[in-house]
Amino acid sequence: MNFEIKYKDGRGRIGNLKTPHGMIKTPALMPVIHPGKQTINVKDYGAEVVITNAYLIYKNQDLREIAEKEGVHSLINFDGPIVTDSGSFQLSEYGDIEVSNREILEFQERISTDIGTSLDIPTPPSVKKERAQRELEITLERAKEALEVRENLMLNSVVQGSTYPDLRSKCADKLGKMDFEVHPIGAVVPLMESYRYSELVDVVMASVSHLPDSRPRHLMGAGHPMIFGLAVAMGCDLFDSAAYILYAEDDRLLMPHGTLKLENLHEMPCSCEVCSNYSPEELRSMEKEKRTELLAIHNLRISFAEMRLVRQAIIEGSLWELVEQRCRAHPFLLDALRKLKKYREDLEKYDPPYKKSAFFYTGPESLNRPEVYRHLKRLERIPTKKRLLLLPRSRKPYSEHLYELGDEFYQIKGDPLKGQLGEDVQVTVVDVPFGIIPLELDQVYPLAQNESPNDYDEDSIKLVKNLLESYIQNFDHVTASAKLVDQFRLKSTFPSIEKYSINQPLEVVVDDYQRIVRIADYQFGEGAGENLFNDSVQIVKSRNTGKIRHVYDGDELIATLRASDGIFVLAKEGARRLHRYLPYPKNRVVVNKDAEPFAREGKSIFAKFVINCDIDIHAKEEVLIVNEEDQLLAFGKSILNGKEILDFNTGQAIKTRKGGL
Amino acid sequence: MNFEIKYKDGRGRIGNLKTPHGMIKTPALMPVIHPGKQTINVKDYGAEVVITNAYLIYKNQDLREIAEKEGVHSLINFDGPIVTDSGSFQLSEYGDIEVSNREILEFQERISTDIGTSLDIPTPPSVKKERAQRELEITLERAKEALEVRENLMLNSVVQGSTYPDLRSKCADKLGKMDFEVHPIGAVVPLMESYRYSELVDVVMASVSHLPDSRPRHLMGAGHPMIFGLAVAMGCDLFDSAAYILYAEDDRLLMPHGTLKLENLHEMPCSCEVCSNYSPEELRSMEKEKRTELLAIHNLRISFAEMRLVRQAIIEGSLWELVEQRCRAHPFLLDALRKLKKYREDLEKYDPPYKKSAFFYTGPESLNRPEVYRHLKRLERIPTKKRLLLLPRSRKPYSEHLYELGDEFYQIKGDPLKGQLGEDVQVTVVDVPFGIIPLELDQVYPLAQNESPNDYDEDSIKLVKNLLESYIQNFDHVTASAKLVDQFRLKSTFPSIEKYSINQPLEVVVDDYQRIVRIADYQFGEGAGENLFNDSVQIVKSRNTGKIRHVYDGDELIATLRASDGIFVLAKEGARRLHRYLPYPKNRVVVNKDAEPFAREGKSIFAKFVINCDIDIHAKEEVLIVNEEDQLLAFGKSILNGKEILDFNTGQAIKTRKGGL
Repeated sequence: MNFEIKYKDGRGRIGNLKTPHGMIKTPALMPVIHPGKQTINVKDYGAEVVITNAYLIYKNQDLREIAEKEGVHSLINFDGPIVTDSGSFQLSEYGDIEVSNREILEFQERISTDIGTSLDIPTPPSVKKERAQRELEITLERAKEALEVRENLMLNSVVQGSTYPDLRSKCADKLGKMDFEVHPIGAVVPLMESYRYSELVDVVMASVSHLPDSRPRHLMGAGHPMIFGLAVAMGCDLFDSAAYILYAEDDRLLMPHGTLKLENLHEMPCSCEVCSNYSPEELRSMEKEKRTELLAIHNLRISFAEMRLVRQAIIEGSLWELVEQRCRAHPFLLDALRKLKKYREDLEKYDPPYKKSAFFYTGPESLNRPEVYRHLKRLERIPTKKRLLLLPRSRKPYSEHLYELGDEFYQIKGDPLKGQLGEDVQVTVVDVPFGIIPLELDQVYPLAQNESPNDYDEDSIKLVKNLLESYIQNFDHVTASAKLVDQFRLKSTFPSIEKYSINQPLEVVVDDYQRIVRIADYQFGEGAGENLFNDSVQIVKSRNTGKIRHVYDGDELIATLRASDGIFVLAKEGARRLHRYLPYPKNRVVVNKDAEPFAREGKSIFAKFVINCDIDIHAKEEVLIVNEEDQLLAFGKSILNGKEILDFNTGQAIKTRKGGL
Repeated sequence: MNFEIKYKDGRGRIGNLKTPHGMIKTPALMPVIHPGKQTINVKDYGAEVVITNAYLIYKNQDLREIAEKEGVHSLINFDGPIVTDSGSFQLSEYGDIEVSNREILEFQERISTDIGTSLDIPTPPSVKKERAQRELEITLERAKEALEVRENLMLNSVVQGSTYPDLRSKCADKLGKMDFEVHPIGAVVPLMESYRYSELVDVVMASVSHLPDSRPRHLMGAGHPMIFGLAVAMGCDLFDSAAYILYAEDDRLLMPHGTLKLENLHEMPCSCEVCSNYSPEELRSMEKEKRTELLAIHNLRISFAEMRLVRQAIIEGSLWELVEQRCRAHPFLLDALRKLKKYREDLEKYDPPYKKSAFFYTGPESLNRPEVYRHLKRLERIPTKKRLLLLPRSRKPYSEHLYELGDEFYQIKGDPLKGQLGEDVQVTVVDVPFGIIPLELDQVYPLAQNESPNDYDEDSIKLVKNLLESYIQNFDHVTASAKLVDQFRLKSTFPSIEKYSINQPLEVVVDDYQRIVRIADYQFGEGAGENLFNDSVQIVKSRNTGKIRHVYDGDELIATLRASDGIFVLAKEGARRLHRYLPYPKNRVVVNKDAEPFAREGKSIFAKFVINCDIDIHAKEEVLIVNEEDQLLAFGKSILNGKEILDFNTGQAIKTRKGGL
């Protein structure tokens, strides 16, 4: 296996793909090189990997001879990784080609391609299902044949199936069981050309969710920077495109917000060397060849810049923010973004629960983000009380800014609060986008680390109303601040609501013990809090911030509350207690006998040593490392999610914090 | 007067401001030049105008001597227009300065500044109103004094008033009546630094709506590209900033989507020469001075690129789309965008009704755009009928794609349609964002030239429901397609709704005469259609497209329906008929005696010749050019709106189509 993941966000990942001619850092854009008539040296403009067409070389006597003698790297004068396509594109464009699957594969091996491709059938969108099915069978047969033919060649195997998600998934399943290195997702160009982005989402999600996580996916023919962020967030790693040159030849400029025609420009749109040094008028009056070269340089510069932005966003955990900005470029991209709601359960599994960046609300689509879905699920881990006090948003963290509650309240259910908050009262803040935030959790990521507009949109109001209707079922008595009731127009939701005043402002203080127990419940599961922390633990606070830092039992550190995201990092005793409480295989990664000594020494765990794990583990979670007898060996932080840990056999899976347990 | 407007979008404008050292093309970013220690030559990176600080020069003996001897242009080695600030910034930072208003003004005149500034008091946000008021009086006095002191110096006069919109408006009113060239809007930096963008909107809108349209407005201290689009859309023309260098010194990168810290970067974010040629690691390991220079170059490149994008957006009519994309960069910018709803009546007056670009829906905020507000107002110009048939969206233009209506309908009011569409039936499409589109108007801009997602958000659904509730009041019988009722969940809005089927699909055809009459009503006002076109007119269609092109009465052309936006361009006879029908001063621009012969010859009308006009004229509308006796002289297309036409006395106001009437 040649691929490993370094960082994750959404379904996106920063990875390294090893090839005979060096490493490809993904997500990567691979400019298409024409083997016979390339004029621009794409390496000068940021290309670290390129794609060219083996069929075009094969068909041209001169090119073929050079390639067979000196290799494709010499032919196209590029010493980094080269991917070759097989002629499928020509097949789809011209209906017939003059080479067999076996021949073109052998040829690719002979010319020392880094990653070759079998001759799949690119079935266009919206054909009859029978045709898609029939052509898919041929694609699968040729994929099988490719495995028989190849010697050392790394192989692409293309997911087809037209616009039938079930066929895409079936194809992905079958190819995933075979021994390929990369999976292109094919025949999507017609969808992109006609702005059918919403269907593109279905096709890509049906494919990636059935492909092995341990192999990169290549969204074939995707070269417009408009789509990079969205495609990466759905799990695509490689992009190829001739767009930079084709658009340039047609006097069009690629931009992350769309395509611009030179004829319409009065001003140049970006900060690149071309846009900074030439005016549209100057470009228009140039001779065609020079102009095409300059526009191609712009197109390369802006495309690589966008790909860098996407990679940066993954690392800092702001990929969704980038995608949500980019998807405003066209209403049909916005439709595609809205379509992701359908896949949020899948996306939630891949999305790391803790990020460096704050969650920024960009519109109703943000309500469908994995973070919101996850919070609402994890909220079920928090036990309820008898009474409920609902408060409106304040600055965050809420518990430090709720001093001005006012004295006007509404009673939604049961008897009113008498002006005193007792132990039986759950204080909960109601806010967008997370809806319901028990005050004990107000410093946990992303409940404190998010911003949204003060002026709520209707989708937000509707979501909150729906959540409240079911949340209040858990309580006998429910009181809400008047401000909150106005903000979310709750009088229509709860018609029997009654207004009343209390004479003095309620003083809301969160009990420290309640806070640590609830955070642990939220983080590790219901009941985890009381099992990690009995009521005799000592809570140590930061002298500077006054916030909880450590929890001890006597001299023994149980866990540390990390200041940046308000979640617990386990100490040895915490790991032991969690191991005793949580039933196998919950929160566990099981390593084989060979890895046991390394784990005990506190060395990090490589995926290939893992023989089982809790499939529900997310990346960046605190996990227990055990042997097959469920003996606790060590504990650490996951780099991958459960499904990925099991699928990968290269790279790190767990960064071990401590061994010797 | 030194300013003229070339293009408009929203409240934004592309203009030219004449100065002694050349023309400033607005909107423009003016980098701040430190008179003593500037290292970067900002002209190399796109600066066409700069701002420097007269007080710093005044205070430093050496600088002062050079400036007084050789002029400020020589001192800072910049031969284009130079704006100077007066020391107000130092006043606000350090509380006191060592120069009087008169002295600093005289000094600015002496050193040949292009645009100088009086010593205003920059009152910070959220101070007590008494203080804001008191300081405002001083600012106003000093403004008056500036007029007495200046000889040839062009003058900035700064709008102050803290965060009190009424004070800002009052200040703007008073300054606007005096003879200044440019109006900065002052003391807004603290709002921007603390992300109080929503309050910034109130401050800017309170100022610009009371300033003369004929003078450029300078949003003082605004130099972050995040804000350019929004500020320009509110009517700001000039921006200044030291941000490019201050941020660089602090290892921060400006981007249109926010600020990035070099320490957090794994990848460089844009397509500029710095981002394309250096890695974050390389920059971090450089010596400070070199790094600061490179980051400043990035900051300049990206800022000028954003300003070019903004200008391009104005010209193509896509400024709102750009602003709506940019305002996703931070939730408080989104709040600011939502705040614009409050100002949509004002914004509608400035926003041209016809644009080159299609209207792209980017989210619920798009529902508040001037185009939607205008459509709903103009809809009142369309007379209603007895019966109403409501249909769901199809591809646009709707009338060409409504062939599949199905046979399931709901009856909302009165008796059902019997399967036949008669003359008494108004067919209306219901869609987002324009809500209600009588089918006759389905090719008029922007009703055909817009896209929105197929998946509606709750704000859209709510808007449509509200519109429908009032629209159906005008009809005795209302039928709606079942698909539409589902899309907008109308059963809850109209509880007495009843389902029924008709046996054969209704065939919807728009009568040509009805179409031209309704378009003219919509464009020129109720009743205009029947007065322009009696029922004996000849309608000539395009052979290629089958669409209506010309309307004749006998041999006389009345008007041409422009293919690109579906509105009428008048011919002579059309102008005459419109002039007869519409009462003075409706749709009229009144020119003085001097201009009368030029108008009759068909020459374009300059603003200085206009003595009166219909204040409700928008830019890009068909207008009648008359003399004081309301004799029709010519007709043409407005370049400015009514308020601007009256306020300006430089530049073109009307592009005359034909004279000799």
